[in-house]
Amino acid sequence: MVKVGIYGASGYTGQELLRLLIGHPNADVVALTSRKFKGMPVSEVYPVFAGMTDLKFVDSSPQQLVPSCDVVFLALPHGEAMLVVPEFVAAGVKVIDLSADFRLRDVSVYEAWYTKHTAVDLMEKAAYGLPELYRDDIKGSNLVANPGCYPTSIILGLAPLLREGCIDLSSIIADSKSGVSGAGRDLQLGSLFCEVNEGFKAYKIGSHRHTPEIEQELGRLANTAIAISFTPHLVPVNRGILSTMYADLNKRVSSAEVVDIYRKFYDGEKFVRICKAGGLPNISSVRGSNICDIGCVVDERTGRVIIVSVIDNLVKGASGQAVQNMNLMCGLPEGAGLDHISLFP
Amino acid sequence: MVKVGIYGASGYTGQELLRLLIGHPNADVVALTSRKFKGMPVSEVYPVFAGMTDLKFVDSSPQQLVPSCDVVFLALPHGEAMLVVPEFVAAGVKVIDLSADFRLRDVSVYEAWYTKHTAVDLMEKAAYGLPELYRDDIKGSNLVANPGCYPTSIILGLAPLLREGCIDLSSIIADSKSGVSGAGRDLQLGSLFCEVNEGFKAYKIGSHRHTPEIEQELGRLANTAIAISFTPHLVPVNRGILSTMYADLNKRVSSAEVVDIYRKFYDGEKFVRICKAGGLPNISSVRGSNICDIGCVVDERTGRVIIVSVIDNLVKGASGQAVQNMNLMCGLPEGAGLDHISLFP
Amino acid sequence: MVKVGIYGASGYTGQELLRLLIGHPNADVVALTSRKFKGMPVSEVYPVFAGMTDLKFVDSSPQQLVPSCDVVFLALPHGEAMLVVPEFVAAGVKVIDLSADFRLRDVSVYEAWYTKHTAVDLMEKAAYGLPELYRDDIKGSNLVANPGCYPTSIILGLAPLLREGCIDLSSIIADSKSGVSGAGRDLQLGSLFCEVNEGFKAYKIGSHRHTPEIEQELGRLANTAIAISFTPHLVPVNRGILSTMYADLNKRVSSAEVVDIYRKFYDGEKFVRICKAGGLPNISSVRGSNICDIGCVVDERTGRVIIVSVIDNLVKGASGQAVQNMNLMCGLPEGAGLDHISLFP
Amino acid sequence: MVKVGIYGASGYTGQELLRLLIGHPNADVVALTSRKFKGMPVSEVYPVFAGMTDLKFVDSSPQQLVPSCDVVFLALPHGEAMLVVPEFVAAGVKVIDLSADFRLRDVSVYEAWYTKHTAVDLMEKAAYGLPELYRDDIKGSNLVANPGCYPTSIILGLAPLLREGCIDLSSIIADSKSGVSGAGRDLQLGSLFCEVNEGFKAYKIGSHRHTPEIEQELGRLANTAIAISFTPHLVPVNRGILSTMYADLNKRVSSAEVVDIYRKFYDGEKFVRICKAGGLPNISSVRGSNICDIGCVVDERTGRVIIVSVIDNLVKGASGQAVQNMNLMCGLPEGAGLDHISLFP
Repeated sequence: MVKVGIYGASGYTGQELLRLLIGHPNADVVALTSRKFKGMPVSEVYPVFAGMTDLKFVDSSPQQLVPSCDVVFLALPHGEAMLVVPEFVAAGVKVIDLSADFRLRDVSVYEAWYTKHTAVDLMEKAAYGLPELYRDDIKGSNLVANPGCYPTSIILGLAPLLREGCIDLSSIIADSKSGVSGAGRDLQLGSLFCEVNEGFKAYKIGSHRHTPEIEQELGRLANTAIAISFTPHLVPVNRGILSTMYADLNKRVSSAEVVDIYRKFYDGEKFVRICKAGGLPNISSVRGSNICDIGCVVDERTGRVIIVSVIDNLVKGASGQAVQNMNLMCGLPEGAGLDHISLFP
Repeated sequence: MVKVGIYGASGYTGQELLRLLIGHPNADVVALTSRKFKGMPVSEVYPVFAGMTDLKFVDSSPQQLVPSCDVVFLALPHGEAMLVVPEFVAAGVKVIDLSADFRLRDVSVYEAWYTKHTAVDLMEKAAYGLPELYRDDIKGSNLVANPGCYPTSIILGLAPLLREGCIDLSSIIADSKSGVSGAGRDLQLGSLFCEVNEGFKAYKIGSHRHTPEIEQELGRLANTAIAISFTPHLVPVNRGILSTMYADLNKRVSSAEVVDIYRKFYDGEKFVRICKAGGLPNISSVRGSNICDIGCVVDERTGRVIIVSVIDNLVKGASGQAVQNMNLMCGLPEGAGLDHISLFP
Repeated sequence: MVKVGIYGASGYTGQELLRLLIGHPNADVVALTSRKFKGMPVSEVYPVFAGMTDLKFVDSSPQQLVPSCDVVFLALPHGEAMLVVPEFVAAGVKVIDLSADFRLRDVSVYEAWYTKHTAVDLMEKAAYGLPELYRDDIKGSNLVANPGCYPTSIILGLAPLLREGCIDLSSIIADSKSGVSGAGRDLQLGSLFCEVNEGFKAYKIGSHRHTPEIEQELGRLANTAIAISFTPHLVPVNRGILSTMYADLNKRVSSAEVVDIYRKFYDGEKFVRICKAGGLPNISSVRGSNICDIGCVVDERTGRVIIVSVIDNLVKGASGQAVQNMNLMCGLPEGAGLDHISLFP
Repeated sequence: MVKVGIYGASGYTGQELLRLLIGHPNADVVALTSRKFKGMPVSEVYPVFAGMTDLKFVDSSPQQLVPSCDVVFLALPHGEAMLVVPEFVAAGVKVIDLSADFRLRDVSVYEAWYTKHTAVDLMEKAAYGLPELYRDDIKGSNLVANPGCYPTSIILGLAPLLREGCIDLSSIIADSKSGVSGAGRDLQLGSLFCEVNEGFKAYKIGSHRHTPEIEQELGRLANTAIAISFTPHLVPVNRGILSTMYADLNKRVSSAEVVDIYRKFYDGEKFVRICKAGGLPNISSVRGSNICDIGCVVDERTGRVIIVSVIDNLVKGASGQAVQNMNLMCGLPEGAGLDHISLFP
């Protein structure tokens, strides 16, 4: 059994990690840290865990966690993860960091969009934790930067087109829509029920921090720098991200051919499903599961390809993908503990 | 492996059975019937199953199913289940009937609230499938009448008080609130999104068909006839039932003492959790799980006890409890395939 | 034109008052106070007002407001309203207080459920602002205590039965369900979208502060002290309260007779509608309007009467009723500015 | 008073027309037709109207309506409106048609996307009922084709850019999101609460029937043929459309300059509000009102302009705009009966 710690476990991604890991056949959660809820049973903070675990939140330093953990998940805010990662890595504990601190490879880009980086030498050692693209890197790494939720949906959605080289790289637009859990459990006016329910809005157009992460990874796939337009929106649902992506085709292909390209690209992937031609995905079909569903349409009138991808932002967009990365890093079956069928309705 | 058929599998309870049984370690679903969707892969009707199963709907008669099934779940409308149950039972196939056809023990009551019964001799042979109360009956039976969703929440909520004998039996009121999936997947005006969303209403006050079922079971617990007031309401959520129950106490007990009575009554039960004194349950804590959470309050000013119980109407209120019954009938661990932690948020 | 000030105008009831008063043919809003948003245009805090008004929030003392206002609405928290009411009243400004500070007539009851009262002498001078019951008091008063949202729904729902004298006064139960705006715009974990959406719960059973207000008013109607069980629940909708009320009948009456009693009692009332026998109300039918819809059922099997009432908690449950009171106090037509048809869907 | 008939009044747009017209100071609704609900009071089909009107649905022919009506609104399905329009027009009754039958000017385009047209001669006589663009046409016309909901949001959103001539006309993408009332009140699986709630999906990508209408109007603004990519999505809310529009700029302009262009273009318009630079609209700010809110952003990194517009699909996207058109056709103040402040929350 892999001994697991969750560092900064009190938010929605932390509790989702716990849900997944309690049901994992090869993992034991040995510690959950939270300064705020120190000493409290996790089942008091999240009643779903009543009777499922006796774990209590502790307020431990990395040094205190090291002896008992094989793997640590970091569910800390950006800027805080980089403060503890070096200690875990130095002590030989495998780290899966759910923050943005080790996702970007260019320090200057990180510092332009976030804050000063204090562990620059580790940035290039981190693997980008998108298993469908970087499985071998992840297997060989002790530090995995778990991708952002929006980036996961967009990169998985565009990777086959970029590898195929059939789109105009300057034409990419990603219009994304996220459920509210993506904003976390912090007390913010914009997260209140009455402010969100029966509403719908775009936010941070052209300025969301996930933009450089998306562009970095699309650029790696295309072997050249790429700039995109990325527009996030807020949907009044608990979970789910749907990204609608547009690009100009540079050659004639049909919807069916695009579906073929996607099916080949993701052949054998357990967590990516391609809709048949004409089919389009719904976030309600992936709720609670680690799956990414993708639909492909060619708009022949305009010569554009439109790709729609959906994930559960807390699972494939965060904690589920983190567990998938743990499985790879620890030599476990990649899908261990991740066989949930989506909960519908 | 237990070979399982689901008869009338195209509604929400049918697909929920399939979700639970695909993940069940000791069961194989061998057939799904649906006249309407005959020949279609279940993954086209419910996209959550894409990649999870290759099963297609068939339109088979009981005779055709009998040879391949050890157990059959019936997810048919009231009045239709009774038409096929005798054949399955006669052939030695274990039957778990999710309709109301075998829940009532008094034919005249059934016929007063439903329709003419065509399999009267089997009514008394059926076990009432509430394992926390009738575990042994269920183990020994080949025909289990799976309880209604409202009755499950109310009977589990009141059983300890009735056994304890501390309430006035003429004073019981159950004010219940159900999510919309309880109305099924039929096309009805009242189930349209715009008719339900941002709304809340009571319906069928004093006349809902679950009333005689609730009264029968409360009466068995109290060893005397009981009449209650039962008011169902519709909540704009997908899943969940919350029942708020009121009764006049016939002796002084505190909230803490009532909690104790409940803890003792349900001691060792895997699927019932009692909130600590002062605690109250939320349907969001049981979503997707087979658990019933119960909170207990004594209102000392009025001498009343108020009990609040919550279940997921599609799981403990239907398909999960049906699987629990299958486990008992087949000698499997009672909780096999039912260890889901609730999905929150 | 009546010159109106709104004191403490930044919450949902404050903005709802503004919505209603901007559309009022006989009122001019001359001042909105908010310490928090001082200096900001109201249209920045609530974008619905863009282009509708140029008003900005001010941070004014009562003395500063007095010269410009004929009427002041107080949308302050309990305990704060009593600090400013005396000054307004002394200066001859009519006051409609939306807090609980002047609803209770018995100081000791107020102080037991709330806090020390600092304006005791004004308590008995305040009229209880439920026009359907106390129209004349309100017309003659300079200080009106606007009723709570739950009390409005329950008192209107039970008044005809109490006046008729046909129920057992010790048997009254009110099971109420409120939308989320009732909790206000404060930042609380329990008001976050993800904590509320797809959930349903009871809270503060037997201990909600509206209990003594409800009991006071039911007692006045019955001419004797009354204790009830009151259970509030939280519904995942923005607006609306539905109260389901139970009482034992002390004589035989049919549903149709109860409907008649209600129709007579509320004859000529513009803001109360009685459903025909068999009909039940839905909160979605009163959204945005000042109307209370009431349905009546006799459960002959148990000898109970069940009454269901619905209001919009922000309108008839708060700001709309406050405007209705202003109309009465100022000699305007009672329905002026309150002729909105509910917004459906 | 203008005497008004609503033909085909039983759906959501019909009842919304009735809501608006009951509150209209210069209009009297004299007839509501519905084959389905013939003889029923409208308050039984839509309880919001209880006590507001005594109108009953009638099943009248155009000939029967003509004598009593100055204006008729047609809320019929596409293909049915064209069957009755000629008779009303010939009789001198002003017609506002909410269907698509008279929106397109090119018969062949209509017939390619819809069905055979039976009143071709009236197609060119119809005014396109978008007052902000075609006010004079509408004033002089007896037949107004009320725009589609998606087209209204997109055309208002792009008109200033097209007139300014600052975008690449081949680069336009409209990514739209609609609430569920846009699908009407028909019984469809896809409109059931449990199918929609907690879901989000795109549909009819590149093939939605509003595409030619949008392209026709954008082309008129640009004086050249335009093809766009249009992707509709379904949001789990009752009301509201948000359209996110993308176009490549053909010259450098800042966000502030685009805001200026929009403010000038819509100067004096009562129903269009432009957010200040940096601001973005939310559908919850226009719920129940006839307003279109627009936000403008230039993404300097990619040289694109992104416009976000929001409307209430049932008001500015249908019935409200229809009343605005009636006002213009009848010489009434353009905003008569349309001064509702949005209902929030």
